[in-house]
Amino acid sequence: MIKNVNKLVLAAVAGAILAASVTSSAQQAQKPENLIKWRQSAFQVLVWNTGRIKASVEGQYNKEDVIKAADTIAAIAKSGLGTLFAPGSEQGKGWHETTTKAEAFKDTQHFAELGASFSKEATELAKLAEAGDQAGVKAQFAKLGKTCKACHDDFRAKD
Amino acid sequence: MIKNVNKLVLAAVAGAILAASVTSSAQQAQKPENLIKWRQSAFQVLVWNTGRIKASVEGQYNKEDVIKAADTIAAIAKSGLGTLFAPGSEQGKGWHETTTKAEAFKDTQHFAELGASFSKEATELAKLAEAGDQAGVKAQFAKLGKTCKACHDDFRAKD
Repeated sequence: MIKNVNKLVLAAVAGAILAASVTSSAQQAQKPENLIKWRQSAFQVLVWNTGRIKASVEGQYNKEDVIKAADTIAAIAKSGLGTLFAPGSEQGKGWHETTTKAEAFKDTQHFAELGASFSKEATELAKLAEAGDQAGVKAQFAKLGKTCKACHDDFRAKD
Repeated sequence: MIKNVNKLVLAAVAGAILAASVTSSAQQAQKPENLIKWRQSAFQVLVWNTGRIKASVEGQYNKEDVIKAADTIAAIAKSGLGTLFAPGSEQGKGWHETTTKAEAFKDTQHFAELGASFSKEATELAKLAEAGDQAGVKAQFAKLGKTCKACHDDFRAKD
Protein backbone atom coordinates (compact mmCIF):
# COMPACT_ATOMS: atom_id res chain seq x y z
CA MET A 1 0.00 0.00 0.00
CA ILE A 2 2.76 2.42 1.06
CA LYS A 3 4.67 1.24 -1.96
CA ASN A 4 1.74 2.19 -4.20
CA VAL A 5 1.37 5.63 -2.61
CA ASN A 6 5.07 6.22 -3.12
CA LYS A 7 4.70 5.25 -6.76
CA LEU A 8 1.79 7.64 -7.06
CA VAL A 9 3.78 10.49 -5.50
CA LEU A 10 6.74 9.71 -7.71
CA ALA A 11 4.55 9.71 -10.79
CA ALA A 12 3.02 13.05 -9.80
CA VAL A 13 6.43 14.59 -9.19
CA ALA A 14 7.77 13.23 -12.46
CA GLY A 15 4.69 14.59 -14.24
CA ALA A 16 5.21 18.03 -12.74
CA ILE A 17 8.88 18.07 -13.72
CA LEU A 18 8.02 16.94 -17.22
CA ALA A 19 5.34 19.63 -17.55
CA ALA A 20 7.75 22.32 -16.35
CA SER A 21 10.44 21.17 -18.74
CA VAL A 22 8.01 21.02 -21.66
CA THR A 23 6.88 24.59 -20.94
CA SER A 24 10.46 25.78 -20.71
CA SER A 25 11.63 23.99 -23.83
CA ALA A 26 8.56 25.01 -25.82
CA GLN A 27 9.43 28.62 -25.07
CA GLN A 28 13.00 28.16 -26.16
CA ALA A 29 12.53 25.42 -28.73
CA GLN A 30 14.25 26.28 -31.96
CA LYS A 31 14.97 24.22 -35.01
CA PRO A 32 18.51 22.80 -34.96
CA GLU A 33 19.22 24.45 -38.34
CA ASN A 34 18.38 27.84 -36.83
CA LEU A 35 20.57 27.25 -33.79
CA ILE A 36 23.44 26.23 -36.06
CA LYS A 37 22.91 29.21 -38.38
CA TRP A 38 22.82 31.61 -35.43
CA ARG A 39 25.96 30.25 -33.81
CA GLN A 40 27.80 30.34 -37.15
CA SER A 41 26.59 33.93 -37.55
CA ALA A 42 27.64 34.94 -34.04
CA PHE A 43 31.14 33.59 -34.64
CA GLN A 44 31.39 35.45 -37.96
CA VAL A 45 30.50 38.67 -36.15
CA LEU A 46 33.36 37.84 -33.79
CA VAL A 47 35.67 37.31 -36.79
CA TRP A 48 34.70 40.74 -38.13
CA ASN A 49 35.26 42.48 -34.82
CA THR A 50 38.45 40.73 -33.75
CA GLY A 51 39.79 41.69 -37.19
CA ARG A 52 39.05 45.35 -36.47
CA ILE A 53 40.91 45.23 -33.17
CA LYS A 54 43.83 43.39 -34.79
CA ALA A 55 44.05 46.17 -37.41
CA SER A 56 44.21 48.76 -34.64
CA VAL A 57 46.78 47.07 -32.42
CA GLU A 58 49.00 46.16 -35.39
CA GLY A 59 48.52 49.38 -37.34
CA GLN A 60 47.17 52.83 -36.57
CA TYR A 61 45.14 52.74 -33.36
CA ASN A 62 41.53 53.88 -33.79
CA LYS A 63 40.04 54.28 -30.32
CA GLU A 64 36.40 54.58 -31.39
CA ASP A 65 36.63 51.58 -33.68
CA VAL A 66 38.23 49.46 -30.95
CA ILE A 67 35.51 50.45 -28.46
CA LYS A 68 32.73 49.48 -30.89
CA ALA A 69 34.42 46.19 -31.77
CA ALA A 70 35.24 45.27 -28.16
CA ASP A 71 31.71 46.12 -26.99
CA THR A 72 30.25 43.90 -29.70
CA ILE A 73 32.56 41.01 -28.81
CA ALA A 74 31.74 41.37 -25.09
CA ALA A 75 27.99 41.51 -25.72
CA ILE A 76 28.10 38.38 -27.87
CA ALA A 77 30.32 36.61 -25.34
CA LYS A 78 27.74 37.36 -22.65
CA SER A 79 24.69 36.75 -24.85
CA GLY A 80 24.27 33.13 -23.86
CA LEU A 81 26.03 31.47 -26.80
CA GLY A 82 25.79 28.17 -24.96
CA THR A 83 22.05 28.04 -25.61
CA LEU A 84 22.85 27.83 -29.33
CA PHE A 85 24.52 24.47 -28.67
CA ALA A 86 21.34 22.85 -27.34
CA PRO A 87 20.88 19.07 -27.46
CA GLY A 88 19.58 18.11 -30.87
CA SER A 89 21.93 20.47 -32.70
CA GLU A 90 24.91 18.09 -32.63
CA GLN A 91 24.66 17.64 -36.37
CA GLY A 92 23.04 19.61 -39.13
CA LYS A 93 23.41 22.50 -41.48
CA GLY A 94 23.08 26.20 -40.75
CA TRP A 95 24.90 28.28 -43.35
CA HIS A 96 27.02 25.14 -43.72
CA GLU A 97 27.44 21.81 -41.90
CA THR A 98 28.28 22.36 -38.26
CA THR A 99 31.95 22.17 -37.36
CA THR A 100 31.28 21.70 -33.65
CA LYS A 101 32.79 18.48 -32.31
CA ALA A 102 30.53 15.96 -30.57
CA GLU A 103 32.58 16.59 -27.39
CA ALA A 104 30.91 20.00 -26.96
CA PHE A 105 27.62 18.24 -26.27
CA LYS A 106 29.19 15.63 -24.00
CA ASP A 107 31.69 17.54 -21.85
CA THR A 108 29.29 20.42 -21.34
CA GLN A 109 31.00 21.49 -18.12
CA HIS A 110 34.37 22.04 -19.79
CA PHE A 111 32.61 23.71 -22.74
CA ALA A 112 30.82 26.09 -20.34
CA GLU A 113 34.05 26.83 -18.47
CA LEU A 114 35.83 27.84 -21.66
CA GLY A 115 32.83 29.99 -22.60
CA ALA A 116 32.95 31.72 -19.22
CA SER A 117 36.66 32.34 -19.64
CA PHE A 118 36.06 33.92 -23.07
CA SER A 119 33.32 36.10 -21.60
CA LYS A 120 35.53 37.25 -18.71
CA GLU A 121 38.42 38.27 -20.95
CA ALA A 122 36.10 39.95 -23.48
CA THR A 123 34.54 42.05 -20.70
CA GLU A 124 38.00 43.11 -19.54
CA LEU A 125 38.97 44.01 -23.12
CA ALA A 126 35.91 46.25 -23.46
CA LYS A 127 36.90 48.11 -20.27
CA LEU A 128 40.46 48.71 -21.49
CA ALA A 129 39.13 49.80 -24.90
CA GLU A 130 36.80 52.33 -23.25
CA ALA A 131 39.73 53.70 -21.24
CA GLY A 132 41.79 54.04 -24.43
CA ASP A 133 44.58 51.98 -22.88
CA GLN A 134 46.38 50.93 -26.07
CA ALA A 135 49.06 48.78 -24.43
CA GLY A 136 46.43 47.20 -22.20
CA VAL A 137 44.17 46.48 -25.17
CA LYS A 138 47.04 44.84 -27.04
CA ALA A 139 47.94 42.55 -24.13
CA GLN A 140 44.32 41.75 -23.32
CA PHE A 141 43.53 41.06 -26.98
CA ALA A 142 46.28 38.41 -26.99
CA LYS A 143 44.81 36.97 -23.80
CA LEU A 144 41.36 36.86 -25.37
CA GLY A 145 42.81 35.11 -28.43
CA LYS A 146 44.08 32.32 -26.19
CA THR A 147 40.56 31.67 -24.89
CA CYS A 148 39.31 31.45 -28.51
CA LYS A 149 42.07 28.99 -29.37
CA ALA A 150 41.50 26.86 -26.26
CA CYS A 151 37.87 26.33 -27.22
CA HIS A 152 38.59 25.80 -30.93
CA ASP A 153 41.27 23.22 -30.05
CA ASP A 154 38.89 21.17 -27.95
CA PHE A 155 35.53 21.67 -29.61
CA ARG A 156 35.91 22.75 -33.20
CA ALA A 157 36.35 20.11 -35.90
CA LYS A 158 38.32 22.26 -38.33
CA ASP A 159 39.78 25.72 -38.71
CA MET B 1 52.13 82.78 -60.88
CA ILE B 2 49.50 82.99 -58.10
CA LYS B 3 47.38 80.64 -60.20
CA ASN B 4 50.26 78.12 -60.29
CA VAL B 5 50.85 78.38 -56.56
CA ASN B 6 47.17 77.78 -55.96
CA LYS B 7 47.32 74.74 -58.20
CA LEU B 8 50.33 73.49 -56.26
CA VAL B 9 48.57 74.00 -52.95
CA LEU B 10 45.47 72.29 -54.28
CA ALA B 11 47.54 69.38 -55.55
CA ALA B 12 49.27 69.05 -52.19
CA VAL B 13 45.98 69.15 -50.33
CA ALA B 14 44.43 66.65 -52.71
CA GLY B 15 47.49 64.42 -52.28
CA ALA B 16 47.22 64.56 -48.51
CA ILE B 17 43.52 63.73 -48.59
CA LEU B 18 44.16 60.87 -50.97
CA ALA B 19 46.98 59.52 -48.80
CA ALA B 20 44.81 59.72 -45.70
CA SER B 21 41.95 57.99 -47.44
CA VAL B 22 44.24 55.29 -48.85
CA THR B 23 45.66 54.64 -45.37
CA SER B 24 42.21 54.51 -43.91
CA SER B 25 40.80 52.27 -46.62
CA ALA B 26 43.85 49.99 -46.63
CA GLN B 27 43.29 49.47 -42.94
CA GLN B 28 39.63 48.71 -43.45
CA ALA B 29 39.79 47.14 -46.90
CA GLN B 30 37.89 43.91 -46.94
CA LYS B 31 36.74 41.68 -49.73
CA PRO B 32 33.11 42.39 -50.71
CA GLU B 33 32.20 38.75 -50.01
CA ASN B 34 33.45 39.14 -46.43
CA LEU B 35 31.54 42.38 -45.92
CA ILE B 36 28.38 40.72 -47.24
CA LYS B 37 28.90 37.61 -45.12
CA TRP B 38 29.47 39.72 -42.01
CA ARG B 39 26.42 41.89 -42.52
CA GLN B 40 24.26 38.82 -43.18
CA SER B 41 25.70 37.30 -40.00
CA ALA B 42 25.09 40.45 -37.94
CA PHE B 43 21.44 40.53 -39.05
CA GLN B 44 21.01 36.85 -38.19
CA VAL B 45 22.32 37.56 -34.69
CA LEU B 46 19.65 40.28 -34.54
CA VAL B 47 17.00 37.74 -35.64
CA TRP B 48 18.10 35.39 -32.84
CA ASN B 49 18.02 38.10 -30.20
CA THR B 50 14.83 39.86 -31.24
CA GLY B 51 13.21 36.40 -31.16
CA ARG B 52 14.32 35.98 -27.55
CA ILE B 53 12.78 39.31 -26.55
CA LYS B 54 9.58 38.50 -28.45
CA ALA B 55 9.30 35.21 -26.51
CA SER B 56 9.62 37.12 -23.25
CA VAL B 57 7.16 39.92 -23.99
CA GLU B 58 4.59 37.52 -25.47
CA GLY B 59 5.11 34.68 -22.98
CA GLN B 60 6.80 34.32 -19.63
CA TYR B 61 9.13 37.26 -19.00
CA ASN B 62 12.74 36.27 -18.39
CA LYS B 63 14.62 39.36 -17.19
CA GLU B 64 18.15 37.97 -17.56
CA ASP B 65 17.44 36.67 -21.04
CA VAL B 66 15.99 40.01 -22.15
CA ILE B 67 19.01 41.88 -20.78
CA LYS B 68 21.44 39.64 -22.66
CA ALA B 69 19.43 39.88 -25.88
CA ALA B 70 18.92 43.65 -25.67
CA ASP B 71 22.60 44.26 -24.89
CA THR B 72 23.60 42.19 -27.92
CA ILE B 73 21.18 44.06 -30.19
CA ALA B 74 22.40 47.44 -28.88
CA ALA B 75 26.07 46.52 -29.30
CA ILE B 76 25.51 45.38 -32.88
CA ALA B 77 23.42 48.47 -33.64
CA LYS B 78 26.32 50.64 -32.43
CA SER B 79 29.07 48.46 -33.93
CA GLY B 80 29.30 50.42 -37.16
CA LEU B 81 27.13 48.23 -39.38
CA GLY B 82 27.32 50.95 -42.05
CA THR B 83 30.96 50.07 -42.73
CA LEU B 84 29.76 46.64 -43.90
CA PHE B 85 27.92 48.37 -46.75
CA ALA B 86 31.08 49.86 -48.23
CA PRO B 87 31.23 50.80 -51.91
CA GLY B 88 32.11 47.72 -53.92
CA SER B 89 29.77 45.48 -51.94
CA GLU B 90 26.65 46.45 -53.90
CA GLN B 91 26.49 43.00 -55.40
CA GLY B 92 27.96 39.68 -54.48
CA LYS B 93 27.57 36.63 -52.34
CA GLY B 94 28.26 36.23 -48.64
CA TRP B 95 26.34 33.29 -47.18
CA HIS B 96 23.98 33.99 -50.08
CA GLU B 97 23.48 36.73 -52.70
CA THR B 98 23.08 40.11 -51.07
CA THR B 99 19.49 41.29 -50.62
CA THR B 100 20.52 44.91 -50.10
CA LYS B 101 18.89 47.24 -52.65
CA ALA B 102 21.11 49.46 -54.79
CA GLU B 103 19.46 52.46 -53.09
CA ALA B 104 21.41 51.78 -49.89
CA PHE B 105 24.61 52.69 -51.71
CA LYS B 106 23.07 55.73 -53.39
CA ASP B 107 20.97 57.39 -50.73
CA THR B 108 23.62 56.88 -48.07
CA GLN B 109 22.34 59.79 -45.98
CA HIS B 110 18.87 58.27 -45.58
CA PHE B 111 20.44 54.85 -44.98
CA ALA B 112 22.64 56.31 -42.23
CA GLU B 113 19.68 58.14 -40.67
CA LEU B 114 17.67 54.92 -40.42
CA GLY B 115 20.71 53.18 -38.96
CA ALA B 116 21.06 55.91 -36.33
CA SER B 117 17.39 55.61 -35.48
CA PHE B 118 17.76 51.84 -35.00
CA SER B 119 20.79 52.42 -32.78
CA LYS B 120 18.99 55.02 -30.65
CA GLU B 121 15.96 52.80 -30.00
CA ALA B 122 18.14 49.73 -29.35
CA THR B 123 20.12 51.64 -26.72
CA GLU B 124 16.88 52.72 -25.04
CA LEU B 125 15.63 49.11 -25.08
CA ALA B 126 18.80 47.91 -23.35
CA LYS B 127 18.28 50.50 -20.58
CA LEU B 128 14.68 49.41 -19.98
CA ALA B 129 15.73 45.75 -20.03
CA GLU B 130 18.40 46.41 -17.42
CA ALA B 131 15.80 48.15 -15.24
CA GLY B 132 13.46 45.17 -15.59
CA ASP B 133 10.69 47.46 -16.83
CA GLN B 134 8.51 44.84 -18.55
CA ALA B 135 5.86 47.22 -19.88
CA GLY B 136 8.56 49.61 -21.02
CA VAL B 137 10.44 46.82 -22.77
CA LYS B 138 7.28 45.72 -24.58
CA ALA B 139 6.51 49.23 -25.85
CA GLN B 140 10.12 49.96 -26.76
CA PHE B 141 10.49 46.60 -28.52
CA ALA B 142 7.56 47.58 -30.77
CA LYS B 143 9.23 50.93 -31.41
CA LEU B 144 12.49 49.19 -32.29
CA GLY B 145 10.61 46.90 -34.68
CA LYS B 146 9.39 49.93 -36.58
CA THR B 147 12.95 51.09 -37.20
CA CYS B 148 13.80 47.62 -38.54
CA LYS B 149 10.78 47.70 -40.85
CA ALA B 150 11.50 51.24 -42.07
CA CYS B 151 14.95 50.21 -43.22
CA HIS B 152 13.83 46.88 -44.69
CA ASP B 153 11.07 48.66 -46.64
CA ASP B 154 13.50 51.07 -48.24
CA PHE B 155 16.69 49.10 -48.58
CA ARG B 156 16.01 45.37 -48.51
CA ALA B 157 15.11 43.60 -51.73
CA LYS B 158 13.08 40.80 -50.16
CA ASP B 159 11.89 39.53 -46.81
